[in-house]
Amino acid sequence: MLNIAIIGASGYTGVELARLLSNHPEVRLTLVTSRQFEGQPLSQVFPNLRTKVDLLCENPDIDRLCDSADFYFAAVPHKTAMDLVPHLRRAGKKVVDLSADFRLRDQTVYEQWYQPHSSAQFLSEAVYGLPELYRDDIAGSSLVANPGCYPTSIILGLAPLLKAGIIDPETIIADSKSGTSGAGRSAQIGSLFCEVTDGFRAYKVGGTHRHTPEIEQELSLLGGRDIRISFTPHLLPLSRGILSTIYARLQSDQTEDAIHQLYQTMYADEPFVRVLPPGNLPATQYVRGSNFCDIGFTIDRRTGRIIVLSAIDNIVKGAAGQAVQNMNIMCGFDETKGLEVVPLFP
Amino acid sequence: MLNIAIIGASGYTGVELARLLSNHPEVRLTLVTSRQFEGQPLSQVFPNLRTKVDLLCENPDIDRLCDSADFYFAAVPHKTAMDLVPHLRRAGKKVVDLSADFRLRDQTVYEQWYQPHSSAQFLSEAVYGLPELYRDDIAGSSLVANPGCYPTSIILGLAPLLKAGIIDPETIIADSKSGTSGAGRSAQIGSLFCEVTDGFRAYKVGGTHRHTPEIEQELSLLGGRDIRISFTPHLLPLSRGILSTIYARLQSDQTEDAIHQLYQTMYADEPFVRVLPPGNLPATQYVRGSNFCDIGFTIDRRTGRIIVLSAIDNIVKGAAGQAVQNMNIMCGFDETKGLEVVPLFP
Amino acid sequence: MLNIAIIGASGYTGVELARLLSNHPEVRLTLVTSRQFEGQPLSQVFPNLRTKVDLLCENPDIDRLCDSADFYFAAVPHKTAMDLVPHLRRAGKKVVDLSADFRLRDQTVYEQWYQPHSSAQFLSEAVYGLPELYRDDIAGSSLVANPGCYPTSIILGLAPLLKAGIIDPETIIADSKSGTSGAGRSAQIGSLFCEVTDGFRAYKVGGTHRHTPEIEQELSLLGGRDIRISFTPHLLPLSRGILSTIYARLQSDQTEDAIHQLYQTMYADEPFVRVLPPGNLPATQYVRGSNFCDIGFTIDRRTGRIIVLSAIDNIVKGAAGQAVQNMNIMCGFDETKGLEVVPLFP
Amino acid sequence: MLNIAIIGASGYTGVELARLLSNHPEVRLTLVTSRQFEGQPLSQVFPNLRTKVDLLCENPDIDRLCDSADFYFAAVPHKTAMDLVPHLRRAGKKVVDLSADFRLRDQTVYEQWYQPHSSAQFLSEAVYGLPELYRDDIAGSSLVANPGCYPTSIILGLAPLLKAGIIDPETIIADSKSGTSGAGRSAQIGSLFCEVTDGFRAYKVGGTHRHTPEIEQELSLLGGRDIRISFTPHLLPLSRGILSTIYARLQSDQTEDAIHQLYQTMYADEPFVRVLPPGNLPATQYVRGSNFCDIGFTIDRRTGRIIVLSAIDNIVKGAAGQAVQNMNIMCGFDETKGLEVVPLFP
Repeated sequence: MLNIAIIGASGYTGVELARLLSNHPEVRLTLVTSRQFEGQPLSQVFPNLRTKVDLLCENPDIDRLCDSADFYFAAVPHKTAMDLVPHLRRAGKKVVDLSADFRLRDQTVYEQWYQPHSSAQFLSEAVYGLPELYRDDIAGSSLVANPGCYPTSIILGLAPLLKAGIIDPETIIADSKSGTSGAGRSAQIGSLFCEVTDGFRAYKVGGTHRHTPEIEQELSLLGGRDIRISFTPHLLPLSRGILSTIYARLQSDQTEDAIHQLYQTMYADEPFVRVLPPGNLPATQYVRGSNFCDIGFTIDRRTGRIIVLSAIDNIVKGAAGQAVQNMNIMCGFDETKGLEVVPLFP
Repeated sequence: MLNIAIIGASGYTGVELARLLSNHPEVRLTLVTSRQFEGQPLSQVFPNLRTKVDLLCENPDIDRLCDSADFYFAAVPHKTAMDLVPHLRRAGKKVVDLSADFRLRDQTVYEQWYQPHSSAQFLSEAVYGLPELYRDDIAGSSLVANPGCYPTSIILGLAPLLKAGIIDPETIIADSKSGTSGAGRSAQIGSLFCEVTDGFRAYKVGGTHRHTPEIEQELSLLGGRDIRISFTPHLLPLSRGILSTIYARLQSDQTEDAIHQLYQTMYADEPFVRVLPPGNLPATQYVRGSNFCDIGFTIDRRTGRIIVLSAIDNIVKGAAGQAVQNMNIMCGFDETKGLEVVPLFP
Repeated sequence: MLNIAIIGASGYTGVELARLLSNHPEVRLTLVTSRQFEGQPLSQVFPNLRTKVDLLCENPDIDRLCDSADFYFAAVPHKTAMDLVPHLRRAGKKVVDLSADFRLRDQTVYEQWYQPHSSAQFLSEAVYGLPELYRDDIAGSSLVANPGCYPTSIILGLAPLLKAGIIDPETIIADSKSGTSGAGRSAQIGSLFCEVTDGFRAYKVGGTHRHTPEIEQELSLLGGRDIRISFTPHLLPLSRGILSTIYARLQSDQTEDAIHQLYQTMYADEPFVRVLPPGNLPATQYVRGSNFCDIGFTIDRRTGRIIVLSAIDNIVKGAAGQAVQNMNIMCGFDETKGLEVVPLFP
Repeated sequence: MLNIAIIGASGYTGVELARLLSNHPEVRLTLVTSRQFEGQPLSQVFPNLRTKVDLLCENPDIDRLCDSADFYFAAVPHKTAMDLVPHLRRAGKKVVDLSADFRLRDQTVYEQWYQPHSSAQFLSEAVYGLPELYRDDIAGSSLVANPGCYPTSIILGLAPLLKAGIIDPETIIADSKSGTSGAGRSAQIGSLFCEVTDGFRAYKVGGTHRHTPEIEQELSLLGGRDIRISFTPHLLPLSRGILSTIYARLQSDQTEDAIHQLYQTMYADEPFVRVLPPGNLPATQYVRGSNFCDIGFTIDRRTGRIIVLSAIDNIVKGAAGQAVQNMNIMCGFDETKGLEVVPLFP
């Protein structure tokens, strides 16, 4: 049994990690931390965990931290993560970091979108934790930067097209819609039930959302050239789920079958990508609670564009589930362990 | 007092017409029809109308119809409308038709997207009922084709840009999201609560939604050239509201102030268009229950695109409210009568 | 035109008062206060009010307050209200206080459930603002204590039965369910979208909710004896609406018609109480956004109990709407002015 | 591996059985039937099952049925079940029937609430499938009548009190609230998203819901005397979850600790009942997707009543999960197999 710590367990990513790990046959949760709820049982903070997780939230003291587990999930905000991770790495611990701090390969880009980086020396060590692109690197890594939720949905949606070079990279637009759990569990007016229900809005419009450079980094690597996209996030009145509607101009005439084949080829052996048959489109309610990414597409011959639809559960494949998938790869477990859950519908 | 009939009162557009008209000081509802609920009080079909509307649903017999009112709202499906409207017009009645049957100027286009047109001779008489574009024509008309919900949000969002000629019309993408009331009140599995709540999906992707030719007709007239767009509708887990996120490439460098000025100039005297100050974005929850269309925009300098956001209540400005606005114009009433309601928030 | 101030305009009751008053033909809003949003336009705090309310939030300085309006809605928390109201009254202003501070006639009871009362001398002056019970007193009063939302639904539901003396007052149970707007607009984890959606719970179970003494005070007066009830509030995953399911044992055999007649008799001339025909039951979605209280009942002959169902919009008839109704009565306006809105469905 | 059939797989109970069984290590799904979707993959009817269930829906031909599996879940409506089950039993198959047809021990009572019973000879054979009460009988049975959703929540909530004889059985009131999945997946106006969202209502008030005799049968057995209760079901705007708020007069003064001890004693070894510590109350969002029943209570000393709160997921512990639990017991599997899922929150 591998001993596991969740640093920052009182957010929605934390509780989801606890949910998934509590049914994982190879691991044992030995430490959960939360400054806000120090001394309280995690199952009191999140009563869904009653009888499933029997740990008190601890204050994340660094020395004690490093003695408490073999494997660490850092589910703390960016900036906090960059200060924490070096301690864990120096203690020889494996880490999946769910913040943005080790996702961007270029320190300059990071500092332009976030703030000065206090542990940039770890950037080259970190592997971007999208198993569908970097499985082998992840297997050999001790520090995995777990992708953002929006990037996961968009990169998986576009990868086969960019690798095949059949879309015009200057025309990519990703119109993404996310459930409210993506805003986290902090008490702020904008996340109140009455502000969100019965409503829908865009936010950080115009290329200002911090997931933009992360998406562009990976799309550029896939396309073999610098790519800039228009990315617009929106807030859905539901708790879990991201649907990205992605537009691009096709460089040449393509059949639906040929494109479907591209997706099939790339994702045939992927346990968590479900390529839908032509004529089928994904919906967030069919991936809810699971680690699946469902992908479908349509060609609009009137305008020469392809429209790709990509659906994930933002807390699972967009965060905690992908983190567990990365852990499985890093530790040599079956990649689907703890993640076999079928989406909850209705 | 003008006597009013609602033909097809048992749908969501019908009940909304009844709601708005029951507080309109210049009119009196004298006839409501519904095949499904014939003989029942409309206030039993829609108990929100109790003590407000005291009429039984009648079967829509044509002869009786024409004697029962001075002004008609046809809230029946397309095809049914094209058979009904000629009777009303020949009886000299004024009509606002909320179906698609008289929206498209070109019969060929209509028949390509719908079915053969049984009363095409009325197409030239009909005026497209978007007051912000055709107020004078509406005032002189006896047959107004009330715009579709998606077209209303998209056309109002793009009109100032197209008239000014500052966007590339080949690059327009409208990613629209609608509340479930847009699917109507017919009993079908896809509209069940459990199928819609906690979920989000696109539908009719790839230029196949029938609002596409209507949108393109009006954008082409505004832009002075043939325009084709990518239009993708989505289904939101809320009852009322459309948000359209509209993308286009700017032809040249523009300041936010200059573009804001374009919107202000076009909509300054419009009672139901609220142009938001730069830096502000609309949300469906702030127009809910009202006839407002809220519009905001952002320029994405990284990609040279403008992103316009346009929010309406699909049953009000997207259907019943705009129909009442058209009636007010056609009958010489104050244009805002019956429509002064403030959006309901929360 | 009567000049109106809303003290505490940045809560959900405040924005609803602004919504209703902005369409009231006899009044003009001249002052809105909010410590939190001082200096900001109220229409920026609540964008639904754009173009409808053009006032900046001011700090509630007492001296300036008293000069700014003729009529005051105090929409501040209890305790704050008891310090504020005396100033307004001494300045000769009419006040509707939406807090609990002047609802309980007995200072001892108030202090047992709340805290010491700093202006108990006003308790005897204050009239409990339930127009269906105290219309004449309200008309002659300058200080009206606007009822709580739960009490409004329960008292109106039980009044005819208690006056007729046909139920056993020892057996009354009120199981009430409220929308989340009742929890207010303060940023707290328990009111976050993700905590409330997809969920349902009771709170303050066992006679501990502070509306209990208010309900019991009025039921006791109606029944002519001391009455204690079991009252259990619950939190619904919707923004607006209260449904109270009220149980009591019938003292003797009764027909449905006879009991329906009791309700009809009491509420025949009430503009905002809709007594449903036997066999019909209320639902919150049919009163949403309106000042209506819909009441229905069923007799369970197997157990000898009557079950009364009572539905209101907690922010309207349960708060802001009833407050406007009280203002109308206090000022001699038509009682329905500003409140003619039809419930918004769907 | 045990071969399993789901008869009636295209309802919400059917898809939930498929979800749970697809991760059950001891069984294999070999047959799913649906008249409506005959010939279609079940994973097309319910796309959440993609890659998890690879079966076509078949028409439920009786002969073929009996050859296709070893163990049967009958998830068809009552009346259909009573015609189906005898065939399966005569073929020697074990059956969990999720309808009401074999739940009532007394044929007269059944026929009074439902219709004539075509296979009453099986009533004595059938065991009421509430493991917490009848585990041993279930283990030895080949026909288990799976309890209704409301009865499960109410019986588990009251059992310790009735067994201890400390409440007055004449005073029991169960005010229950259920998610909309309980209304099934049939296309009817009352279950449409727009009719349910933003709303709340009671239905079948006054002892007319067919779960009433089932609840009373079991409560009477527990209490050792005839018990009649007031039971009021309500419809919640969420898909999954039942909360029952249960009231009863205490026969004598009791401490919270003593009553908590009663619950602890009865449910100490129950894998799916979580008795909450005094001061804690259940909520449906903390059992969502799981087989747990969470129970809490409060004593209201002012009125001498105890209020018990009981929360389940109506499709899991209230239907499919409990059915799998029964199968586990009937087949000698570990009772929690396939049911270890942690509730999904948020």
